Amino acid sequence: MESVKERLAEFSTEAHDLYPSRVVPYLDEPPEPLQFYRTWVAPNRPCIIRNACSHWPALSRWTPQYLREKVGSKVISVAVTPNGYADAVNGDRFVMPEERRMSFSTVLDIIEGKVQQSGVCYIQKQCSNLVCELSELLDDVESHVSWMSSALGKLPDAVNFWLGEASAVTSMHKDHYENLYCVISGEKNFLLLPPTDRPFIPYGVYQPAVYRQRDDGEFEVVDQSDSEKVPWIPLDPLDPDLDRFPQYRKVQPIRVTVKAGEMLYLPSLWFHHVTQTHGCIAVNFWYDMEYDIKYNYFQLLETLTEVTASS
Amino acid sequence: MESVKERLAEFSTEAHDLYPSRVVPYLDEPPEPLQFYRTWVAPNRPCIIRNACSHWPALSRWTPQYLREKVGSKVISVAVTPNGYADAVNGDRFVMPEERRMSFSTVLDIIEGKVQQSGVCYIQKQCSNLVCELSELLDDVESHVSWMSSALGKLPDAVNFWLGEASAVTSMHKDHYENLYCVISGEKNFLLLPPTDRPFIPYGVYQPAVYRQRDDGEFEVVDQSDSEKVPWIPLDPLDPDLDRFPQYRKVQPIRVTVKAGEMLYLPSLWFHHVTQTHGCIAVNFWYDMEYDIKYNYFQLLETLTEVTASS
Repeated sequence: MESVKERLAEFSTEAHDLYPSRVVPYLDEPPEPLQFYRTWVAPNRPCIIRNACSHWPALSRWTPQYLREKVGSKVISVAVTPNGYADAVNGDRFVMPEERRMSFSTVLDIIEGKVQQSGVCYIQKQCSNLVCELSELLDDVESHVSWMSSALGKLPDAVNFWLGEASAVTSMHKDHYENLYCVISGEKNFLLLPPTDRPFIPYGVYQPAVYRQRDDGEFEVVDQSDSEKVPWIPLDPLDPDLDRFPQYRKVQPIRVTVKAGEMLYLPSLWFHHVTQTHGCIAVNFWYDMEYDIKYNYFQLLETLTEVTASS
Repeated sequence: MESVKERLAEFSTEAHDLYPSRVVPYLDEPPEPLQFYRTWVAPNRPCIIRNACSHWPALSRWTPQYLREKVGSKVISVAVTPNGYADAVNGDRFVMPEERRMSFSTVLDIIEGKVQQSGVCYIQKQCSNLVCELSELLDDVESHVSWMSSALGKLPDAVNFWLGEASAVTSMHKDHYENLYCVISGEKNFLLLPPTDRPFIPYGVYQPAVYRQRDDGEFEVVDQSDSEKVPWIPLDPLDPDLDRFPQYRKVQPIRVTVKAGEMLYLPSLWFHHVTQTHGCIAVNFWYDMEYDIKYNYFQLLETLTEVTASS
């Protein structure tokens, strides 16, 4: 069994050669669909595309004043947590945020420091919230990314709007989507690991729970006792506990800052951890991934990692 | 270790769902490059394309008479074997054909039964022999397949000409190429297995040797004693020895007959075994494959298959 474990580690290390080495390449203009599919999507490699969303009206329009006028009175879903970590391991729990209904202007009041409150707010509802909750803003962006839709032969499944405080963090995870992440204002900081690093990435299985803010302002953690346990990554890539997770020494994280007007192509199944500047606004497009042979191979890697870890 | 072996077998069986079930789909016309890349190349799936090479002059021109006139006097490389098996396991040897220099008209004499000889002839030199040895025929075909070259962003590495007797067989193997196989006259019969079937496919390591026809007409097997041993598949998929190779019960061979005017897309790393009608003529294009994550995953599958087999 030790030989299988060694082979998995060799595989992951060799795969580093397939991916950008610590920095993500830039494209200077929107690519041709076939070229993009062949060079980035099929080989599952990230890149940043410049001049692909920089012409959107949103880049100049989406000031706090404009947003208050357009959508200030809209009531939307906001993730509220005591520490900025929505959907993350806390002790022996996988804790999700309190989903609070608030007016958009209240969120802006908090972001702008006009209102003090305990807890961290993040508009991050990934249910196509730009379309469902903030449709008044749709004219300021494009409804899909035409070259990506041509490349993939489909339209996005979801278009999400993101706005949060500096302390709002997205813990390391992966998605079953091809993701185009467009920063409108501020900066997003991504830490990326390829799917092939799976053998080096620790997973646990956790009881799901949600934060709930009490009347006194303190947060409590409430178990969702009727929900099945959730597999999640307990490691913080910004401060990894290498004594507890020694295999993680073998990863080579790629760090990338996406600036306003830039678009990150975050390929399906890549592990990512995200932070941001205060009040950063972003829009992302989720295109459903293909469940092809790459996906089957990833599942094989995942189960073999689990089988050898528990032996 | 048994659990790893089981997981590999599960993976291969699950992957059958990704591929055509026993029959290969047909496209009725040459595809758009992006569409072809996305639907067939990236997911590594075979198909047959109709009306893609049927307009080539070769289809009507390449009669024995025309070929004698055009290239009859050309001396070319012909693979000669006692049994039709060039590059195949014979006992404890991997035996390659005698590479004989013959005029094209002599090969036609043998194919047409005008000359009797012991041994089986097959023009199958895969070094772009259409370009290097039979360039007088180049006007009768296209020098590359334009939509495939656009899809892959490159030209073919080799264009090969094939002409052989009914008893000439290509034993099961895989190539590191994206292959477009065009039948000009007669029929080719392919038996295909996806790369993901690797755990079910037996390999051995064999001393390389070549056939040599003696003056009395008998063939002897001459070891290439200075050559390294060769890994090859000892199984005959037309008559598999399931007692010796019980794992092979789990494959689901795809059988396909490619007729004159049809083009088979045989994806990289697919295992294939080939027979043909007597005198069948074909031209194939080899495009170099991408050594991307799919290739690394295949190598992982291969070494894990070997590690678990020898445990």
